Amino acid sequence: MAAFHPLAASRVRISPLIPAAAMAGTAGAAAASYAQHRRRFCAIVATAAASPVPAAAAAAATGFDFNAYMGEKAAAVNRALDASIPADEPPAALHEAMRYALLAGGKRVRPALCLAACAVVGGREAWAMPAAAAVEMVHTMSLVHDDLPCMDDDDLRRGKPTCHVVYGEPIAVLTGDALLSLSFHHMARFDSYPPDIDADKHPARVVRAIGELARCIGSEGLVAGQVVDLEMTGSTETVPLERLEYIHLHKTAALLEASVVIGAILGGGSDEQIESLRMYARSIGLLFQVVDDILDVTKSSEELGKTAGKDLASDKTTYPKLLGLEKSREFAEKLLSDAREQLSGFDQETAAPLLHLANYIAYRQN
Amino acid sequence: MAAFHPLAASRVRISPLIPAAAMAGTAGAAAASYAQHRRRFCAIVATAAASPVPAAAAAAATGFDFNAYMGEKAAAVNRALDASIPADEPPAALHEAMRYALLAGGKRVRPALCLAACAVVGGREAWAMPAAAAVEMVHTMSLVHDDLPCMDDDDLRRGKPTCHVVYGEPIAVLTGDALLSLSFHHMARFDSYPPDIDADKHPARVVRAIGELARCIGSEGLVAGQVVDLEMTGSTETVPLERLEYIHLHKTAALLEASVVIGAILGGGSDEQIESLRMYARSIGLLFQVVDDILDVTKSSEELGKTAGKDLASDKTTYPKLLGLEKSREFAEKLLSDAREQLSGFDQETAAPLLHLANYIAYRQN
Repeated sequence: MAAFHPLAASRVRISPLIPAAAMAGTAGAAAASYAQHRRRFCAIVATAAASPVPAAAAAAATGFDFNAYMGEKAAAVNRALDASIPADEPPAALHEAMRYALLAGGKRVRPALCLAACAVVGGREAWAMPAAAAVEMVHTMSLVHDDLPCMDDDDLRRGKPTCHVVYGEPIAVLTGDALLSLSFHHMARFDSYPPDIDADKHPARVVRAIGELARCIGSEGLVAGQVVDLEMTGSTETVPLERLEYIHLHKTAALLEASVVIGAILGGGSDEQIESLRMYARSIGLLFQVVDDILDVTKSSEELGKTAGKDLASDKTTYPKLLGLEKSREFAEKLLSDAREQLSGFDQETAAPLLHLANYIAYRQN
Repeated sequence: MAAFHPLAASRVRISPLIPAAAMAGTAGAAAASYAQHRRRFCAIVATAAASPVPAAAAAAATGFDFNAYMGEKAAAVNRALDASIPADEPPAALHEAMRYALLAGGKRVRPALCLAACAVVGGREAWAMPAAAAVEMVHTMSLVHDDLPCMDDDDLRRGKPTCHVVYGEPIAVLTGDALLSLSFHHMARFDSYPPDIDADKHPARVVRAIGELARCIGSEGLVAGQVVDLEMTGSTETVPLERLEYIHLHKTAALLEASVVIGAILGGGSDEQIESLRMYARSIGLLFQVVDDILDVTKSSEELGKTAGKDLASDKTTYPKLLGLEKSREFAEKLLSDAREQLSGFDQETAAPLLHLANYIAYRQN
């Protein structure tokens, strides 16, 4: 398993996010570095589990209305997505299935990250809107294919029957393919962008952004994560921590990272800014998954009368299972702290959306 | 069915390739325009069916060695494809399946078209090599997904077990996704190109080329063709001619068109050159399918002792079934003639590969 450490295994050069002490499961000296973050994050997670801090409360402290921000961005992205697929042109079955999968709701976290990253480096939101739509297309493609009978075999998604249940398996496979190619078409089309873009700089940025998007999908991203996740499914072995991190860095964090980085590239960010935002995104990507795992455990133990946590029931390997709840909270706290730190070099007012998105991922209930 | 004419149905603005007279199945006055081409093409197809003119014979007449050209291009493209996917890096199962599907042989017609189109507009071959590899990745993706049990359910491809037979269905779906994203990654990566590319012009060409590639895959290309083809499968109805043309223009011609157009874009072709080559490609794309259909019929009727044509056996709608053999030959002849005509404005020596590729598609036996 040593050969499967994400640093060795992945072609993406990702710095280790889990400190050595946590990986060894010891409470050694290195673990002391967590202590400074422990108080804050334990409070966050404990409160989230028992009675979540509503986003509005966090907003009150900074004057930034996170809910309004997310609502406004989701509406704009939904308009772009709606316009990207004709409702009444043939092949009707395909377009209908693409629209069904893509316009099924969702919080549009990835597009919001993309738009916020464009803004934080001083770019206009319209420059990143095609990319914001594109990352949601890629996310939807991965959901449609992961839900297939031969994969995770899920019948429900966001409370609605999944694409293959409604349209059949062949159309679901093809819907994913079409959404994936549409994401690149949408980003490459000149008419996706406002007419006053800088014609000298724009194409180079688009090429770089498309490279980032493409890289996060295949054998260095989403697909790699799904392949390793499938390999673990049904195994009675406990997944080693480094493999768990590999799965999450690829299956969850890679597209969050691409969303942020692409926004920053299209916004005209410097290489230094782009790399800070990449580290921010990588931290919140893994935070997303750690909090997921923590919520599953804390809910099952604290909310009596409800079904025990899905992960526990399916004996799935989670951070709390491998590290214990306390160390998982410390790790999550460290990730949130790291993400915030990466934003410290930006103007705090324009960085507010990214800061609140990190908080949202830490505070969220589902 | 009238609403399904490709001109009305497709978002791609494609000029009609089948003249009205042929579509009506009449031998009216308009059909007279075929007559001038009939003699040459009937001879070609009849000869091809009975005893094909070897490519070497055609080569002798022009001094161009088509077989040597194709062998050299295929070898170069295979090297690029081989280098694009690491053999020994995780996730091993995915990389192995991607290499299995991609390096299974094949004539590499699409990459050859891409490289030849780059050269005919005066571009260096190295500028189009990443795109030549990319179009083969897209072609392979479409084969892997089309072969899936829920689609055409094919167990053999080029004489070898198909991807899902060897690696299982989940890996086959993911292999297609990874190849599709790799194609865009490969085209977008700066290090795919020679170091002396023109940094001022290159990104704009790459963005335009990526847009062409992406467009030919989804609901305006390959996927659209497969969806409509699946809708026809198992139906006892005869497919109307316009729908047959829609399927072939999308399922076969779209990627051939993109291969040629992308090569011309990356080679720095003018808009006028690119559009001539687009029309050339569209003609040979449909020619490819018409000749396929003709060979299926002529083989079954002329080669006694062999299984009757697959298309006849499966009652599949073909051009000979709809138009009759004679009119199908006329149509094929017209398509070859149209393709040649589009090359007339180019230097005939540099256009030789494209000319011979058109001949190859008309003359080929499988």
